[in-house]
Amino acid sequence: MNSAQNSTTASSVSPAAAATADTDERFERGLKLLREVGGEERPAVLDSLADIAPDLGRMTVSFGYGELLANDRLTLRQREVATVAALCAMGTAAPQLRFHIDGALNVGVTPAEVVEVILHTAVYAGIPAALNGLTVAREAFGDRPGLSYEPTDTGERERRYERGLAKLAEVDGHAGDAVIASLRDIAPDLGRYIIEFAFGDIYSRPGLDLKSRELATVALCTALGTAAPQLRVHIHGLLNVGGTREEVVEVITQMAGYAGFPAALNGVAAAREVFAERDR
Amino acid sequence: MNSAQNSTTASSVSPAAAATADTDERFERGLKLLREVGGEERPAVLDSLADIAPDLGRMTVSFGYGELLANDRLTLRQREVATVAALCAMGTAAPQLRFHIDGALNVGVTPAEVVEVILHTAVYAGIPAALNGLTVAREAFGDRPGLSYEPTDTGERERRYERGLAKLAEVDGHAGDAVIASLRDIAPDLGRYIIEFAFGDIYSRPGLDLKSRELATVALCTALGTAAPQLRVHIHGLLNVGGTREEVVEVITQMAGYAGFPAALNGVAAAREVFAERDR
Amino acid sequence: MNSAQNSTTASSVSPAAAATADTDERFERGLKLLREVGGEERPAVLDSLADIAPDLGRMTVSFGYGELLANDRLTLRQREVATVAALCAMGTAAPQLRFHIDGALNVGVTPAEVVEVILHTAVYAGIPAALNGLTVAREAFGDRPGLSYEPTDTGERERRYERGLAKLAEVDGHAGDAVIASLRDIAPDLGRYIIEFAFGDIYSRPGLDLKSRELATVALCTALGTAAPQLRVHIHGLLNVGGTREEVVEVITQMAGYAGFPAALNGVAAAREVFAERDR
Repeated sequence: MNSAQNSTTASSVSPAAAATADTDERFERGLKLLREVGGEERPAVLDSLADIAPDLGRMTVSFGYGELLANDRLTLRQREVATVAALCAMGTAAPQLRFHIDGALNVGVTPAEVVEVILHTAVYAGIPAALNGLTVAREAFGDRPGLSYEPTDTGERERRYERGLAKLAEVDGHAGDAVIASLRDIAPDLGRYIIEFAFGDIYSRPGLDLKSRELATVALCTALGTAAPQLRVHIHGLLNVGGTREEVVEVITQMAGYAGFPAALNGVAAAREVFAERDR
Repeated sequence: MNSAQNSTTASSVSPAAAATADTDERFERGLKLLREVGGEERPAVLDSLADIAPDLGRMTVSFGYGELLANDRLTLRQREVATVAALCAMGTAAPQLRFHIDGALNVGVTPAEVVEVILHTAVYAGIPAALNGLTVAREAFGDRPGLSYEPTDTGERERRYERGLAKLAEVDGHAGDAVIASLRDIAPDLGRYIIEFAFGDIYSRPGLDLKSRELATVALCTALGTAAPQLRVHIHGLLNVGGTREEVVEVITQMAGYAGFPAALNGVAAAREVFAERDR
Repeated sequence: MNSAQNSTTASSVSPAAAATADTDERFERGLKLLREVGGEERPAVLDSLADIAPDLGRMTVSFGYGELLANDRLTLRQREVATVAALCAMGTAAPQLRFHIDGALNVGVTPAEVVEVILHTAVYAGIPAALNGLTVAREAFGDRPGLSYEPTDTGERERRYERGLAKLAEVDGHAGDAVIASLRDIAPDLGRYIIEFAFGDIYSRPGLDLKSRELATVALCTALGTAAPQLRVHIHGLLNVGGTREEVVEVITQMAGYAGFPAALNGVAAAREVFAERDR
């Protein structure tokens, strides 16, 4: 049975009809994509699980790569940026973070961009998350003898407040001002750190474009599941810097594979709220 | 002072009277249970903490095993399924996951069931959580020379949508339909993945009964603390597939030991809401 | 440009003027503090990141130590107690937990207090979190040949209910009673465990004063991000046992560095609610 035959038996274009693709087709599509990301002819996940749970290897290929990642609503490059950000922020998946740092490099993310994505997680998941992510990145870089990477020292240490304020306005519009203003009576230093460190030091760094930063932020806030207000702010942010609603939904959906369906479902609920706000 | 003497001083049967059991009795009861789970005459937790925090070893026995797990509202088998699910989903407790995979096997959970519980976590905590859980299970299985385990390849790769839809109805009744319907306008693929992957691929697998799956789901959603709407759905689900309210409360309470009291308290609050909904 | 010059260009004392300190000054201030905490003339974080992300090393010094921790609203001792509690509860930052266990010892927290802080996390993040924290502490203690540490065996195994109830009243006032009462109809054992284990066994232990316990609790509930109701209860708790509002806000703000800005922002929102409740 293939999906074309199947759909002729349905009285209308039901989700089932659209969905029930031929299995081998899903698996082959997944295999092709996983080869591109993993850089191996025979993905390790198939063999490494053969003795204990071969079905999970198969499902990782046919569901994970053959379905979840198998549409062109995001580029592979965007997908790997989002995944590295989420796994680094979660801090519970070092082997998979390693795999996807390599995956990012395999699909054209530069080493400098990988490092920027990891530094970016410091804002949302804390400095330890970024430090531990860099440990994994160093190993990955070290295992690629041909890799050329020169660390950036931005030297940008002044005018952090002005720079941060401008960047915050670019991402959040007036919503950012409101957050900072609301902190003034209770935790003014925290508001200042957001401007100076988060936006002045980190967001203003060259080497990762603003849309990628917001994509990473939406991905990791969805995956963490503990940052609901911030997820809403940065869904707005991603839309503000050129992302589309389709991209927002797609990166949130992708997190089902890396952080589970509850994370993705709660992320979609946040997106629905934000879209409704913008429609008003 | 022992509890019998204590209760004579109380004017009524107060919680204190019922609660203040003789300490040695608690410790002995815990030791007996921990021997059953750990499979050792002398639990390692007592000796391994002797040099740094012997009290934590003692409390693990007398509180953890002597009180928290020392009632028959759940079988030991159910408790270990719940604990393996929660620790695997949390991803922060590899040594304890190892201990409880052994514990599950010691109290009669089969290796195939252990693997199914771990695969089940892929739905709720992401594929990395399941992959890392399998790494621990492989080590545990390898250290038991007599263990016989043949991995299952279900071969079930077709009719995922129909199969998933039927399983979702079994677990969630109409509530499941509502979740999927609510996604149709914003993230229809996510709805389809829930049916096809979560319920068609994972929940439909043989080797773990539906009530155990829902028990595992309630345990891990409680432990994660980031899946409040899904916890409510699956408290309904556990009740729908034959679980009792007593079992719901007990598995949530058990999580106090593995994920802390806030997780358990917030889980009980969710249970209260669900019970009230069902009473209306 | 230094901050004095900068402020002359502003029409009033704007946050920017107050904020834009000279960079070298921030770095030097951070270096001094980090030397105190890390016990090394040349902090390892500068050299270990030189090949991959020197900017993160620099920002850890100039932002993390030069700004975030560089005020006297909390003592270094209080800060390290809070950080050890948070990192231990998170369970995703073993290298940083190790660093801050050493840091705590370097600024005058005793080994026995470090162990008490770790045991305290069992209540809020589960027994596995405490067990894994002790593994790190054992390594840290072992690497300090001069360290003298004799584990405490409290021997306090009776009258847990009475002792716990008294301690709960001390921390929570009537709010604690309300939590326990609300559990009576649905999960009375959980209520009893909170009194007997959390407050009778753990909170009542000697070796860590009650204010430090509440400071640790506010820190770790903020960092976890999954314990919103409990965070509010223990912001009240910290204020009840002698903490100030300034200390509450400061320890929550500090968590921005260890668990990210969303954690700190959501913590401040909780503090605002609690302060408003107390003002009514």
